[in-house]
Amino acid sequence: MRRTDFAMALHGGAGAIPRASMSDAQEAQYRAVLAEALTAGHRVLAAGDTALEAVCQALRVMEDSPLFNAGRGSVFTHKGEIEMDAAVMVGRTRAAGAVCQLKAVKNPVFAARAVMERSGHVLLAAAGAQAFAESAGMETAPPDYFRTEERWQQLLTARGDGRLALDSDLPNPTAAEGKFGTVGAVALDRSGGLAAATSTGGMTNKRWGRIGDSPILGAGTWADETVAVSATGVGEMFIRACAAHEISARMRFLHEDVLRASSAVLDDVARLGGRGGLIVIDAEGHIAMPFNTAGMFRGRVSSASDIEVAIYSD
Amino acid sequence: MRRTDFAMALHGGAGAIPRASMSDAQEAQYRAVLAEALTAGHRVLAAGDTALEAVCQALRVMEDSPLFNAGRGSVFTHKGEIEMDAAVMVGRTRAAGAVCQLKAVKNPVFAARAVMERSGHVLLAAAGAQAFAESAGMETAPPDYFRTEERWQQLLTARGDGRLALDSDLPNPTAAEGKFGTVGAVALDRSGGLAAATSTGGMTNKRWGRIGDSPILGAGTWADETVAVSATGVGEMFIRACAAHEISARMRFLHEDVLRASSAVLDDVARLGGRGGLIVIDAEGHIAMPFNTAGMFRGRVSSASDIEVAIYSD
Repeated sequence: MRRTDFAMALHGGAGAIPRASMSDAQEAQYRAVLAEALTAGHRVLAAGDTALEAVCQALRVMEDSPLFNAGRGSVFTHKGEIEMDAAVMVGRTRAAGAVCQLKAVKNPVFAARAVMERSGHVLLAAAGAQAFAESAGMETAPPDYFRTEERWQQLLTARGDGRLALDSDLPNPTAAEGKFGTVGAVALDRSGGLAAATSTGGMTNKRWGRIGDSPILGAGTWADETVAVSATGVGEMFIRACAAHEISARMRFLHEDVLRASSAVLDDVARLGGRGGLIVIDAEGHIAMPFNTAGMFRGRVSSASDIEVAIYSD
Repeated sequence: MRRTDFAMALHGGAGAIPRASMSDAQEAQYRAVLAEALTAGHRVLAAGDTALEAVCQALRVMEDSPLFNAGRGSVFTHKGEIEMDAAVMVGRTRAAGAVCQLKAVKNPVFAARAVMERSGHVLLAAAGAQAFAESAGMETAPPDYFRTEERWQQLLTARGDGRLALDSDLPNPTAAEGKFGTVGAVALDRSGGLAAATSTGGMTNKRWGRIGDSPILGAGTWADETVAVSATGVGEMFIRACAAHEISARMRFLHEDVLRASSAVLDDVARLGGRGGLIVIDAEGHIAMPFNTAGMFRGRVSSASDIEVAIYSD
């Protein structure tokens, strides 16, 4: 039995997010963008359009905001460049598309969607992905568009703190990161269709073309007829847990609900040494948004409930 | 109860492989390399070394052979270049490493292993992956080393056949391919440890930095405490089925055996429009090697049985 006609959840990253580090004005800015993204998705779903369109429109708002680590405001690589990853997946058909290491596309989520709809492939990477996105008519932007002073300072700090660690064989340089600003959305539309999307600038100071879980279908992004999932956190551990697909498997085979399945998988990620969060929606519109960090930028809305936005765990 | 002290299976790709197209002498060459790879893995396992070492040594033999689409003998991209992907995963720890779009590393499987053991990351792509591999001391080779005349002719044919298709919005250009020469290995060692590895040159005439399922943990490569899996075939559909991890989930949650779980997943891949094959080994040494193509280069060996090599389904 359907709980709601339609519903949607989104995240803007999980992490330490110390309250002391954020002023009331800053917090209000984050909440405003989360609400704007939910409003964009709600508008699509209320009009009877697809879950895919809803998650893409919601992510566009967050990619366009410099506050989140996706699109404008993406973090910098070790070389001081932008390398963005994104993925989308449609539950009913399990059609999927993803891009890695885009350098100049304003909205990577739409590039991922174009891969799904128009390339005949699922995953395109690096210069080829950029070339495909341009040939598919995606809007591009110069490096200055993506750059924010805060992200640049984060790189300088990470380079200073991390140079020794990252140049060595340290087993887990990812542990150094405090806040992960990956954005993601999951939605259920009026027709009962599910979709998921995730977009990220990755990890500050990343090297060697490192790719996290966001564009990896099954790890950071997944949708099928049972559930749609988007993850945020230490990508390596979400890949090793095959986190998003494991939630689906637990629901399909063990008949766990969204909260139980996602909590079990987050516990598994933690056992592997990872931190982060997940947003999950099932075919009845039930939503879970567990995280094992101090906070996760998140929100939800449905045909039966108003927009709710939250950051901390209490 | 352990069926064998140790065991191993490998594949050298699934596809049409028409008998008429292969002379007895050619078939003997393929069988000889498969046997050599199994011998290399057997030696490691008999000596009590790890499943990880066994799958890497077996894949090295197949990467070094020009007969298979991995390492030397990799297929050409649309631009006439080599772009190789590989992944490894260790069952007990779920440690994993993968590389995409390597252009000049002789043995991509060892680059993937170096990512796992020394980068602190799981997946590295493109120029960054190549730079990491070189900094980790991987042996490189010039383009001529990888080039074989047969692969070059395949590119010219594919370009001729496929130009219109690949330049258009054809939903599935991958359907054009006949034979997939990806290589993979799975093993169980004396200590009960499982590991999986896959290595590929990808798809002839691929464009836009297309990446298939081989380096995607959960899709083309997976290992945990239950099972180790390597896939070959139309990578897009294996990603959308999250094939390798789905086999694990079915075994863990539905208590299916290797054959039942892998056959069910291959049926799912077929429903999505994909063809190919899988090799699977569980913690008791049971092996399944299903495929839905005319043939799959494959073989197996264990502490209790001699080397067996096969190509066709009968």
